[in-house]
Amino acid sequence: MSIDDVIPIAEGSRFGGANSVGLVETKFITFAEPPNEMKLECGQKLGPITLAYETYGALSPERDNAVLVLQALSGDAHVAGYHAPDDRKPGWWDLFIGPGKAIDTTKYFVVCSNIIGGCKGSTGPSSVNPATGRPYGLAFPMVTISDMVRTQAVLADRLGIPRWLSMTGGSMGGFQVLEWAVRYPERVVSAIPIATTARLSAQGIAFDEVGRQAIMADPNWRGGDYYDGQAPRAGLAIARMIGHITYLSDEQMHAKFGRRLQDRDRFGYDFKTEFEVESYLRYQGDSFVRRFDANSYLYITKSMDYFDLAAGRGSLVEVFERVRAEFLVLSISSDWLFPTYQSKEIVKALKANGIPTTFVELQSPYGHDAFFLPSEQMSATIAGFLENVLRRVRQGARAEGRKT
Amino acid sequence: MSIDDVIPIAEGSRFGGANSVGLVETKFITFAEPPNEMKLECGQKLGPITLAYETYGALSPERDNAVLVLQALSGDAHVAGYHAPDDRKPGWWDLFIGPGKAIDTTKYFVVCSNIIGGCKGSTGPSSVNPATGRPYGLAFPMVTISDMVRTQAVLADRLGIPRWLSMTGGSMGGFQVLEWAVRYPERVVSAIPIATTARLSAQGIAFDEVGRQAIMADPNWRGGDYYDGQAPRAGLAIARMIGHITYLSDEQMHAKFGRRLQDRDRFGYDFKTEFEVESYLRYQGDSFVRRFDANSYLYITKSMDYFDLAAGRGSLVEVFERVRAEFLVLSISSDWLFPTYQSKEIVKALKANGIPTTFVELQSPYGHDAFFLPSEQMSATIAGFLENVLRRVRQGARAEGRKT
Repeated sequence: MSIDDVIPIAEGSRFGGANSVGLVETKFITFAEPPNEMKLECGQKLGPITLAYETYGALSPERDNAVLVLQALSGDAHVAGYHAPDDRKPGWWDLFIGPGKAIDTTKYFVVCSNIIGGCKGSTGPSSVNPATGRPYGLAFPMVTISDMVRTQAVLADRLGIPRWLSMTGGSMGGFQVLEWAVRYPERVVSAIPIATTARLSAQGIAFDEVGRQAIMADPNWRGGDYYDGQAPRAGLAIARMIGHITYLSDEQMHAKFGRRLQDRDRFGYDFKTEFEVESYLRYQGDSFVRRFDANSYLYITKSMDYFDLAAGRGSLVEVFERVRAEFLVLSISSDWLFPTYQSKEIVKALKANGIPTTFVELQSPYGHDAFFLPSEQMSATIAGFLENVLRRVRQGARAEGRKT
Repeated sequence: MSIDDVIPIAEGSRFGGANSVGLVETKFITFAEPPNEMKLECGQKLGPITLAYETYGALSPERDNAVLVLQALSGDAHVAGYHAPDDRKPGWWDLFIGPGKAIDTTKYFVVCSNIIGGCKGSTGPSSVNPATGRPYGLAFPMVTISDMVRTQAVLADRLGIPRWLSMTGGSMGGFQVLEWAVRYPERVVSAIPIATTARLSAQGIAFDEVGRQAIMADPNWRGGDYYDGQAPRAGLAIARMIGHITYLSDEQMHAKFGRRLQDRDRFGYDFKTEFEVESYLRYQGDSFVRRFDANSYLYITKSMDYFDLAAGRGSLVEVFERVRAEFLVLSISSDWLFPTYQSKEIVKALKANGIPTTFVELQSPYGHDAFFLPSEQMSATIAGFLENVLRRVRQGARAEGRKT
């Protein structure tokens, strides 16, 4: 489950396999160099800004086949393929990206963009603050989903992509998809938000806040200024454990762990790990702290809490008035973090504007994290949607060509 | 919401009101004095044991009208009435207990028993360990739901109650009800488990474990030996915040807080409290640490995790073979911590044994904590059930009398 476990590897997608994009590397752009910093939504300025990304496949001469993949909270730019031949696992959505897969890299030019505020190569709180020569820590300005998307628009410019044939992302990746479609309507031909919402719910904010409290209560956090010492690992592990409970369904937890004990056949009557589910959570917490920065966890969850697509723009129906993209909205039947009713709110507001919208609720017992798992239904749905969009775009271009 | 907020006070139940049990006091029994300690399920011995309880109303000469009320995780023996005339609020289930209420103290002798392992007057980890003269801390033995119930049986003996007309409790209180009905079938005439389960789910264990990790990660916890210094307040507050999210429904959180900001009209773009739901959680966490012991939180959640009524006894259907009580099982439609399907498992296993069972799913948007809130449906259902049981018991006794 989830991208922390061994990522399922599709048939033919081992290193060197016919369905793998093969050896890839993370690339970077840097922009907003002082004195031309980017003004953020919070009012503060940020610069220089580095943004990490990866690309697979080739941009067509017409530049009409680019697909943007957007990451969730703990993801990165490495979405498919391998960084080295002996990598134990491929990028985090390799199941769906590669030759012959849902997002077929023989047809599409796939770009995966990282986010600012994180710790995976893009500028974030662990980056060096040019004003001090030391890591930003809490001097890093608050970034919003909108700020992230604006940096991704710079990336699109640099890559010479006038508009995206499509873009997709699950969870917080879906926030970015929605923001893109509203902020740059002329640059988004189609959009595939997955297991997401147009505004984080009170329950979502609540889970995020408890995770942040756990980090900030860790004495090693020291107001975010911990980069020269011990990281607040205990606090971050607790935050991650809370997250993991919300990523799985009750049903799946029961099926996967039940009340089984870990490496023992009777209760120990102490406070050590006893149940398998405890062992799983501790493992997830421990492995996360080795690869993630606690301050980034604070900043990214906060960007999620602030996300409300309609805020300051009227109702959701009014917001979508400007949208030009057609939509494929996917939800997961057992997802209780971003339940189907939240996807339906998006669909309803899109349809109220006459926007072509397909809605599919994936039947899966695996909860929110199901979008990381193999799904023939999801693969086929995305593949078919993309093919139709590309065909219509090219038919439209030919018709346009005949007219002129 | 929940017993931490101002408890709703029913009409006529203010101090001195006609529907209040009035001034009450917590009482105590002490038993299992060394060398006659009680042997616990974990194999260790505990003694002396003090158990706190309260009683309201009068035991009938036939001793046939006693109703036992059992508490949830953070409750205590003070379930109804006032300890002092100027108390701001009555006991935690005053809505349902008193003259003219669901559990009518003019008809029934109501006993509320506290639990061992807690910190509300009964022996627990903050009690003095007679072996050292200092608080037990983690030297306190692990106690189970079964151990708690065995101490309550001693209380019943002391009070001269041969059998309970009925017993009720929500959440972990329901665990005790189920354990009573199975362990002492001849002493339980009827049982009303509310918003509960016959075994804690993997998801329930997971939430408990993260809360415990937060407590144990607090440097003030010091292996549980903190009674001469600062308590692990930050860790306990986080544990409580996690709990509170699970006690409310998504729907109710949205209705109660939505995305509203607390005492401000725009985002602060910092890590201070911004959203109302954050403020609520922090308040709940802060108020809890003033009234609850962190080690007791560890022990009680662990007793919940261990709870599996059928473990070591066969299937749930087999377990209920020995039961003599009739049942009223109540669940709450929006409860996702102890969802209705878990109550239905109990009902199914009871009915498979031909045990007279009434099942009611209360329609409420308030989530797990709904059983602390006013509900005409719950009041009327419990009142009617108890009246029927009492009538049948007395008819049976009269018939018995005519025969002899």
